[in-house]
Order: sequence, then C-alpha cells, then structure tokens
Amino acid sequence: MKENQMEKSVGEAGTANGAGGASELAERIKKLEQRVEELSRRVPEDKVAMVVFSGDLDRVLAAFVIATGAAAMGMEVTMFFTFWGLSAIRKGKKLAGKNFMQKMMALMSPASTRGLGVSKLNFFGMGAKMLRAMMKKQGVSSLEELMELARELGVRFVSCDMSQQVMGISDGELMEGVEFGGVGTFLGEALRARTALFI
Amino acid sequence: MKENQMEKSVGEAGTANGAGGASELAERIKKLEQRVEELSRRVPEDKVAMVVFSGDLDRVLAAFVIATGAAAMGMEVTMFFTFWGLSAIRKGKKLAGKNFMQKMMALMSPASTRGLGVSKLNFFGMGAKMLRAMMKKQGVSSLEELMELARELGVRFVSCDMSQQVMGISDGELMEGVEFGGVGTFLGEALRARTALFI
Amino acid sequence: MKENQMEKSVGEAGTANGAGGASELAERIKKLEQRVEELSRRVPEDKVAMVVFSGDLDRVLAAFVIATGAAAMGMEVTMFFTFWGLSAIRKGKKLAGKNFMQKMMALMSPASTRGLGVSKLNFFGMGAKMLRAMMKKQGVSSLEELMELARELGVRFVSCDMSQQVMGISDGELMEGVEFGGVGTFLGEALRARTALFI
Repeated sequence: MKENQMEKSVGEAGTANGAGGASELAERIKKLEQRVEELSRRVPEDKVAMVVFSGDLDRVLAAFVIATGAAAMGMEVTMFFTFWGLSAIRKGKKLAGKNFMQKMMALMSPASTRGLGVSKLNFFGMGAKMLRAMMKKQGVSSLEELMELARELGVRFVSCDMSQQVMGISDGELMEGVEFGGVGTFLGEALRARTALFI
Repeated sequence: MKENQMEKSVGEAGTANGAGGASELAERIKKLEQRVEELSRRVPEDKVAMVVFSGDLDRVLAAFVIATGAAAMGMEVTMFFTFWGLSAIRKGKKLAGKNFMQKMMALMSPASTRGLGVSKLNFFGMGAKMLRAMMKKQGVSSLEELMELARELGVRFVSCDMSQQVMGISDGELMEGVEFGGVGTFLGEALRARTALFI
Repeated sequence: MKENQMEKSVGEAGTANGAGGASELAERIKKLEQRVEELSRRVPEDKVAMVVFSGDLDRVLAAFVIATGAAAMGMEVTMFFTFWGLSAIRKGKKLAGKNFMQKMMALMSPASTRGLGVSKLNFFGMGAKMLRAMMKKQGVSSLEELMELARELGVRFVSCDMSQQVMGISDGELMEGVEFGGVGTFLGEALRARTALFI
C-alpha cells in the first residue's frame, strides 16, 4: 500500500521537475542501505565451527575429515576441544600437581591420540587398532596426518579452559599452538558460521 | 551488460529532464526492496536451537554450558529434549499408568538429573560422582545451577511429545514450565537459527 | 558522515536540475545491487544436511524423524551416512571379496536396520527390541516406514565412499538409490544449508 503511494508520488514529482522524485528515491535508497547493512551482520561468514566433545577415535577422525575438507574449500575452521575431546590434543600426561580425582581421571583417559578408543566394538582397544590398520591398508590418512594437514590449512585448535580446569589438565600437557578459550570463544565463531557441529 | 545499458539510459534521461531517470531508478529500487525483503526471510535470526538427545551427565552439561552462554550473548535459545535427554527435565518417576515395557524403561532410566551417568568411564555411577565432585572442587556450576541459570536467562525447554509417548513419560513427571512440542517445534526454531546442534 | 554528505549533494543537485541527483542515486543503487548479490550468495538456502555417523537405532530414528519433518516443511534434505551410520542403508552383508579385518568388521556390525542396537541400555539387543515394541504399541512409525517416507519426500541418501572403502562395504551391499560421495558432497550441502547436524 505504502509502496504504491510512494511510487505514484515519485512518478508525479518526476514529471514536474525531478527534484521531489530524487529526494524520495534517496530516502528509499537510504532505508535500503541501512537494511542491507543490518542483514550483512546476520548473514553467515565463510566459517565452520565444531565442538569436539568426544574422545572416540572414530568421532575425532570424522571431525578432522570435515575440518580439513572445509578448510580446503576456503572456510575458516575453528575446532573447540572439550571434555573427552581434550585427549585428541594432549601430547602426554603428567600426574604432578593434580589432586587425587584429577590423577584418577588422567590415568583413565588417553594421554594422546594414540590411546583413543572407538565408540563401538572397542574390545579393550582392539577396535581402534583394527580401524587404524584398516585405514592404513586402504591408504586413508591417519588421524595424526589429518591433524598435521589441519594445522597446515590454518585450522584453529581451541582448548576449553573450563574442561581443563575440571579435569586438571595443565596447558603444558597440550600440543604446541593450541589456543585457550571458553564457551564464548566457540559461540563467537559458531554464531557467525555457515555450519556448526557438535561431535 | 543489462546493467550498463540501464545506467547509460539513466545518464541520458538525467541530462534531458531527470524524469525518465527517476522512474528507471525507482524501478531498480523497487526490485532491490523486493530482493532485500526476500533475503531477510532467509537470513538467520538471533536464535540458537539444540536437540538434547543424550541423557549422559557430561553431554547434558555441555548442552547447558552452550545454552546459558548463548542466552547471555543475547540469543533466544530453545532446547528440545528427546529420548534419553528427557531424563534431564524429569523431576521424579511414576510407575502407575505405565504398561510393562514403559515401567521397565522408567526403572532403567534416571528419574532426574541427579541420576545421570557419564558417557565414558561410568563404572556404575562412579564417573558421574567423580565429575560432579571435580566440578564442585573447581568452583564450576553444577548442572542444577546451570539449569536454574538457563531458566532465568529465558531459555525455552521443550519436551518431545513423541518420545514421551513412546517411553510412557507423563507431563506430570516433568519439571514445571516445560513446553510440549514435536519435531516441527524444533525445526521451526532450528531453520531460522544462527546455530543448531544435536547433542 | 559520508552518507550525510551524499544526501546533501543529492538534495542540492535535485533542486538545480535533477541530473546530478539521478547519477549519484544510480551510483548508490548500483552499489546496493552488488552488495545484495553478494549477500544472496551467503544467505542459507532451503536445505538441511545431516551426517549420520551413529549406527544406534535410537539415533538413526532421531535422524529420520528430523529428515522427514524437514522435507515435509519444504526443505531439500541430504543425509550423509558414514562409519557406523552405513549400517542404516545396508540391505545385507557379503563376506566374499573382503580382507580378514573387513570380514571381522562386517560380522560385528549390523547387516541392515533390523540389526541396529540402541545407544543406552542395549542388553545384547533387548533395548532395541523393547524400543521397537514400544513404538509399535504407541502407533509411532517404525524406522523402515520413516525411511520409506523419507525417500518419497525426496530426501537424498549419500554413502561416504571413504568409510565404505575402510570398512570394505561394496556398493552392492547398500540399498537401491543411494548416491556415493565424499566429505565434499556433505560440505557442499551443509555450507549452504539452514541447518546442519552431526548425529
């Protein structure tokens, strides 16, 4: 309704001298500029964000296959490692400086990617060994190769500081180049990402 | 090509009397207005939607950390509890009015957040007790505190009616203030959300 | 600042003869057209993409409930089956042509949807039987009915070729009409989707 009115007045003004038309058009353009500015703040950016919550070899593998794929397609990828997922970015475990329960948790959870089990058919580690052997036989990249590739492609690894604190994992137990952050770091990326996954 | 042509004609018209220019510009503006209107229907809104499928303490905790974080960042958050996730919003269990299998399911699944196990290293409940103790020691909010916070921040809790029906969980077994809905309720939010996660 | 200046000059030009105004407005419109074109490439399309990683009956059910719901709401839905999720689209298992470890994996993983267990309370298959019986009693569609419905609604089933290769699952072991693809196929959909989930 309002639009029709506006258009008519533009037509009339245009016939008269073009001045009224121009100022009304300018008004509409200004509104469009503001609206487009507003929209561009809500349109997803070329980003992918992931929570790597699981510490299962198969799920961590899936996370890195997606992360390297997305990075290769030009996306800015952020992986946020939390809870069991922290095992994927550990380079070993230390017991000194941990309280009793943190020591227990450290002993029971894998010290690095080499110790990750699979989510199904684990059989005390047999499942993971089988999966690794099958991947090798078929010439598929190992988890460690995929992680290396991810870093080369600029994928960001962020460690969840709250999980580290709860589980008593010190910064020194994590791989070099890992960033530290909280849920806000994840959300800051996820809310502006094209795709966000919880793995 | 077409654009160049249009611009030229605007220039010519402008030189002549400004009227032709104005009406052509008005046409382009109208098209832009329609296009922008169309885009704004597809641009994500300030919403976050989650399916809480898991009933594991660690995963439910992660869901609430993300939910409260997103709500604190001004997002409208909807959590859709389904299958095992329903345990997180139960306030107790009743056996009356359930058929045999529903009774079995009710006896085997947790009556409330207090009974949730963890997804790994559960050891008949030891894992959950340990995780709770470690969180307390480190001054991290408990699940119940996070849920309280979520409600204060206006996070919507929606219970999956199909799961309730299959598992024989009556509305009265759920916390106050829980809404009831189906997959359409979840999708209605998720499809317009900045971020949607399956946990 | 710059915008104010522009508007003023439009006003002045308009008063003079309308020509300067029109060409400046045309310039702003052209910029808007480019900007809107740019935005429309980044705005999500009416698509939903899912990774079905899990082979648990309960999780696969959730995936199909969401997939059929989204398709019924007019979304173009793509389900990407990987790792254990491949079991959902198998129609039987063959041992011929598999190496020792692939045979082991084939024997240990379900030959079709009929063999899927549940993620919790499985009790050597009891959990899945119970869940199926409870769904039937409550008149809820079975997994097979949901899969049939998904196909009728045009949901695309894509099998992860890397997982097939690692697990030694031949194309002939999968249901008719399944497409084959890699992580790029998934990302091609997910990056342009309104909602993408990892299940």
